[in-house]
Amino acid sequence: MKTVVVRHVERASADVIDVLRGAGTATVHEAMGRVGLMKPYMRPIYSGACVAGSAVTVLAQPGDNWTIHVGIEQCRQGDIMVVGVTADNTDGMFGELLGTSMHSRGAMGLVIDAGCRDIGPLKEMGFPVWSRAVSAKGTVKATLGNVNMPTVCAGVTVHAGDVVVADDDGVVVVPRAEAAAVARASEQRIAREGRSRQRLQSGELSLDINAMRPQLVKLGLVYVETLEDAMKLDPAD
Amino acid sequence: MKTVVVRHVERASADVIDVLRGAGTATVHEAMGRVGLMKPYMRPIYSGACVAGSAVTVLAQPGDNWTIHVGIEQCRQGDIMVVGVTADNTDGMFGELLGTSMHSRGAMGLVIDAGCRDIGPLKEMGFPVWSRAVSAKGTVKATLGNVNMPTVCAGVTVHAGDVVVADDDGVVVVPRAEAAAVARASEQRIAREGRSRQRLQSGELSLDINAMRPQLVKLGLVYVETLEDAMKLDPAD
Amino acid sequence: MKTVVVRHVERASADVIDVLRGAGTATVHEAMGRVGLMKPYMRPIYSGACVAGSAVTVLAQPGDNWTIHVGIEQCRQGDIMVVGVTADNTDGMFGELLGTSMHSRGAMGLVIDAGCRDIGPLKEMGFPVWSRAVSAKGTVKATLGNVNMPTVCAGVTVHAGDVVVADDDGVVVVPRAEAAAVARASEQRIAREGRSRQRLQSGELSLDINAMRPQLVKLGLVYVETLEDAMKLDPAD
Amino acid sequence: MKTVVVRHVERASADVIDVLRGAGTATVHEAMGRVGLMKPYMRPIYSGACVAGSAVTVLAQPGDNWTIHVGIEQCRQGDIMVVGVTADNTDGMFGELLGTSMHSRGAMGLVIDAGCRDIGPLKEMGFPVWSRAVSAKGTVKATLGNVNMPTVCAGVTVHAGDVVVADDDGVVVVPRAEAAAVARASEQRIAREGRSRQRLQSGELSLDINAMRPQLVKLGLVYVETLEDAMKLDPAD
Amino acid sequence: MKTVVVRHVERASADVIDVLRGAGTATVHEAMGRVGLMKPYMRPIYSGACVAGSAVTVLAQPGDNWTIHVGIEQCRQGDIMVVGVTADNTDGMFGELLGTSMHSRGAMGLVIDAGCRDIGPLKEMGFPVWSRAVSAKGTVKATLGNVNMPTVCAGVTVHAGDVVVADDDGVVVVPRAEAAAVARASEQRIAREGRSRQRLQSGELSLDINAMRPQLVKLGLVYVETLEDAMKLDPAD
Amino acid sequence: MKTVVVRHVERASADVIDVLRGAGTATVHEAMGRVGLMKPYMRPIYSGACVAGSAVTVLAQPGDNWTIHVGIEQCRQGDIMVVGVTADNTDGMFGELLGTSMHSRGAMGLVIDAGCRDIGPLKEMGFPVWSRAVSAKGTVKATLGNVNMPTVCAGVTVHAGDVVVADDDGVVVVPRAEAAAVARASEQRIAREGRSRQRLQSGELSLDINAMRPQLVKLGLVYVETLEDAMKLDPAD
Repeated sequence: MKTVVVRHVERASADVIDVLRGAGTATVHEAMGRVGLMKPYMRPIYSGACVAGSAVTVLAQPGDNWTIHVGIEQCRQGDIMVVGVTADNTDGMFGELLGTSMHSRGAMGLVIDAGCRDIGPLKEMGFPVWSRAVSAKGTVKATLGNVNMPTVCAGVTVHAGDVVVADDDGVVVVPRAEAAAVARASEQRIAREGRSRQRLQSGELSLDINAMRPQLVKLGLVYVETLEDAMKLDPAD
Repeated sequence: MKTVVVRHVERASADVIDVLRGAGTATVHEAMGRVGLMKPYMRPIYSGACVAGSAVTVLAQPGDNWTIHVGIEQCRQGDIMVVGVTADNTDGMFGELLGTSMHSRGAMGLVIDAGCRDIGPLKEMGFPVWSRAVSAKGTVKATLGNVNMPTVCAGVTVHAGDVVVADDDGVVVVPRAEAAAVARASEQRIAREGRSRQRLQSGELSLDINAMRPQLVKLGLVYVETLEDAMKLDPAD
Repeated sequence: MKTVVVRHVERASADVIDVLRGAGTATVHEAMGRVGLMKPYMRPIYSGACVAGSAVTVLAQPGDNWTIHVGIEQCRQGDIMVVGVTADNTDGMFGELLGTSMHSRGAMGLVIDAGCRDIGPLKEMGFPVWSRAVSAKGTVKATLGNVNMPTVCAGVTVHAGDVVVADDDGVVVVPRAEAAAVARASEQRIAREGRSRQRLQSGELSLDINAMRPQLVKLGLVYVETLEDAMKLDPAD
Repeated sequence: MKTVVVRHVERASADVIDVLRGAGTATVHEAMGRVGLMKPYMRPIYSGACVAGSAVTVLAQPGDNWTIHVGIEQCRQGDIMVVGVTADNTDGMFGELLGTSMHSRGAMGLVIDAGCRDIGPLKEMGFPVWSRAVSAKGTVKATLGNVNMPTVCAGVTVHAGDVVVADDDGVVVVPRAEAAAVARASEQRIAREGRSRQRLQSGELSLDINAMRPQLVKLGLVYVETLEDAMKLDPAD
Repeated sequence: MKTVVVRHVERASADVIDVLRGAGTATVHEAMGRVGLMKPYMRPIYSGACVAGSAVTVLAQPGDNWTIHVGIEQCRQGDIMVVGVTADNTDGMFGELLGTSMHSRGAMGLVIDAGCRDIGPLKEMGFPVWSRAVSAKGTVKATLGNVNMPTVCAGVTVHAGDVVVADDDGVVVVPRAEAAAVARASEQRIAREGRSRQRLQSGELSLDINAMRPQLVKLGLVYVETLEDAMKLDPAD
Repeated sequence: MKTVVVRHVERASADVIDVLRGAGTATVHEAMGRVGLMKPYMRPIYSGACVAGSAVTVLAQPGDNWTIHVGIEQCRQGDIMVVGVTADNTDGMFGELLGTSMHSRGAMGLVIDAGCRDIGPLKEMGFPVWSRAVSAKGTVKATLGNVNMPTVCAGVTVHAGDVVVADDDGVVVVPRAEAAAVARASEQRIAREGRSRQRLQSGELSLDINAMRPQLVKLGLVYVETLEDAMKLDPAD
């Protein structure tokens, strides 16, 4: 592995990041064409946080948080650090002291494919973390990884400067070059869903709002009165 | 698979359902003879909710929520939808819009052997969901399943009209034909536990309240003073 | 297995236990030389609890809570019961009634390598439990285990009288003979971290506070401006 | 739970069972409309076995194999025992002695949602088992379940007399009433696949054999020469 | 953690070890009173091996195999190394070179609560390994653990000199002080099972061989002819 | 997601690929600096296969194998298809017919982060597959993914044309641009290990071959005679 730190990171515009934060992970993920979502084992250490920011990426060895120390120096106001590891690991590679450091430098949060500890103090400080585990397990400082190289975190390739959106539903990553287009598509989606929501609240069915019934018939969906009627149908699909 | 919707569902009486809701999952599960419990990976998306209602069942393909749209039409005031899938899946097959639709029709909650998203808005709306995962992953509408056919959800066979009880401890399913008897047995159990609770609060031991000591002796339980004494005992059982 | 109860347990002093409780699991685990931590699947049934106490150990058969009933009699004011099982299990082996009994006798909490139920009432009562699962699954009373024998719980060997510390980050076990030394080391660690925290809050980097930069250079860490520059480096480590 | 043994079991005809055995799990599962498959954690204890037979069902308590002893008496020549448990469990609930008993009575194999042991001797004897785990963990005989009641095993509801097909790809269950129709559909499927196989062996593509290309175009699939060309496409789906 | 190597290890007699090897894990585990078994995720890297020997224990940091190098020096002819790690890990901490070293010194095998690699060459060499994973992931040599201290491996506390028995069914650990008694109990068990096996092969049922029928009646087991009859029984236990 | 097929793929030279195949996954992974390894849940469907080839990448929707059909057309003699999916999935997305097609076109194998079926026939045919599961579960053809775009498979980003090496120890991916350098480093490593192997076979210890003893002393490793001596050491690290 190249033990290297890339210092220059292109970031998306603050306006675009703001729109993506407002849209939330589910809408952004849909607007991208249903990609970019980290695996659902990534959970927030406390509920209610919703952040978006530019990725500073760290690739670390499992159980070794040295490269996180190196990566903090590359974070700017509004950034989110994304940490991948070279093998599955749940050790508490991040805690209150590192959180204090990132918080004092204006970083918005951390996404780590390993464990986090000191979750009480981090919640009190208002520094949100999305991790695969909570664990008090301490780490060593023995082997270096790299910073701001393309890194896989929880199933997604992240490049430095990509926009990370994280909330109670999970974490989604938007490639920087696509961020503006995805923000626009998210806004359109929100408008469309607002119209549906009103009709659903009044008791209309999505089957009617989205005119699904003809397609259901075409695919052979049958309505019967009782289970006994259903059992008489041909079992073949 | 038969792509079919069964329209007519027999439901248990509201009185019986009320008793089961009041008893909670642990008591109901015991009163049934320790069966009917879904696997413990089924967790509520927010704590504190406690519901009971008649099951409307949906069997869906993984990552495809089309049949949920179809199933909502079959829900009545007080029902709980139970969704099984044909292969393990954590995608966010249910979210705020579907929740709005069910909520507006008077359904009490959802139990889904897959993922749920929009958990912030669903909590705000007061629509509880028990799921195997939280995930923003979007779904397709490509393949139909069936509605109100017997369905396996999280290890339990559910028939439409069975009574579903769900709270912070999990989800239990009571066959409709047994619901009244289970409700009665639950009430007896609650009365019995109330008497034990008082004695336990006053410091009495369950060993004495339940007269367990003679049986312990019979099975060969030995009391010794120290670990050294214990090591001298014959290792064979 | 020897079905035996050891009655006499040496306990650490209350002062030492108090220091360990104040330090919390992460600090205590580090002060011990990064050992003694239970696996991170052990989670509190509600957040915010922080306890420390002397271990009363129980080895139970999976799905059988009889030996827990036996063990409660051995608990004194301030103790924490630690339950191991002979095979992986998530059944709800502990609930409100047993919690009432332990609470009324002054025990501080329970650590169980199995499931817990009645988590609503236990939270209300203020009796914290760390468990591998929440499950309403009931248990039998058929086979006996032992009490206050050395027991493996969630990957750690626990002896009766060891000090158990548990909080939102997990559970750590301190051998009784080492408790005083670990308490002292924890206090030193807290003092040292307090000094670091202040400097980190003012924006200083841990790289500078801990003088890591020379070592980074020595290990070959390279700083470059762009990803393109990084790709030109020799791939060999 | 009703502790009951149902003695009378309707079985499918030997001819139908023979066809299903010859077709194998993947073909049978497809012919049923892609349902009826147990979860993929069910694995054979040795490779190469392929069996089909009528289900004798057992519901057992985890870690308690008493009801398996009871169930063996209900097995006839050619049957397969299917064991579900009331909570997740990996204990070795079945081993050489029980295998000897079933083998001597002409049973064809066992499917158990728990652990199996003595896998060396069972392989030697030629008695195949599909299980969720291999484990030497012994079990008790303390609590009874039931025999030949509808039972969930590895995600599938099994009724006594359903046809169970098991091979290296897993385990599939065919409801007895549908077995003949599924056997016919399986034979048709095998004939159809035989024709495809020949064309594929000669180098033809499934895209052409199944005339998929027009649909690919319709759904917007684009062919480009290089990754750079692909990056210029609009990111929105 | 104490970074220490204990040089002197008491070992069980070769005769006792031979008996335990011949009995195999399932029988030995039963003869001990159903304890001492490692978790069933411990699997052999190739099937058919069956070994027993005295434990040389190693506690290592995850992803760091330095202490294994240290531990090999403490192995004698016939020993089995048992490696625990301080946090869950699947890295390939052991491979062909270490296997060559142990093999040349007469060690019989390795049991490791982490990953193993080079499984092809190890099989060829005839050096069996039981591990929680197969993984090519390389490790560092940065942090020391200890050798021949009590160590938890896959849920069992192992002391240096305990007898380890491992075969296709898993791994069981017999405390040295109990090894002779367990060997005797194993022999008795084998004799008893031999008599049962003969009767089972002739078609007799275990229900009769072990005279279980009266107890079944006492516990309320009911035999009925059909499912319909069973449904009429009272659902309460 | 862009539903696109990239037709032109740069491939590494056959000589380099041959060296990497000969070296095997463990050596190649080490030679790359301990990166590039897929997660260890990726297992071969039969043991003993060892392949290397150029990656043709496919990103598919879970439970939908349509894009695999599309991807086969892009495979050349010697290639290995690598399939990632957009959410965790174990369905049998690949089987005998697709294997026949790839085999007839000269492809060397398949690596799929999902399930595989027909493992008997695939083994007979000599077409190796590395997958996360074996499952007979059938799939749909409803949604398209893409071919030869950068894809995450089992935790590793794969570009079309990267060299994939797979054997009994797992799967490793070498970026095309680094393949020649990694091949050279692998050869050096093999030579070095050959020299160590000889010395290990003669009974020398790696502690001496690699001159580790001074470093062990420096880090504070202590040798004592007995466990009692070890317990007297200061517990602080």
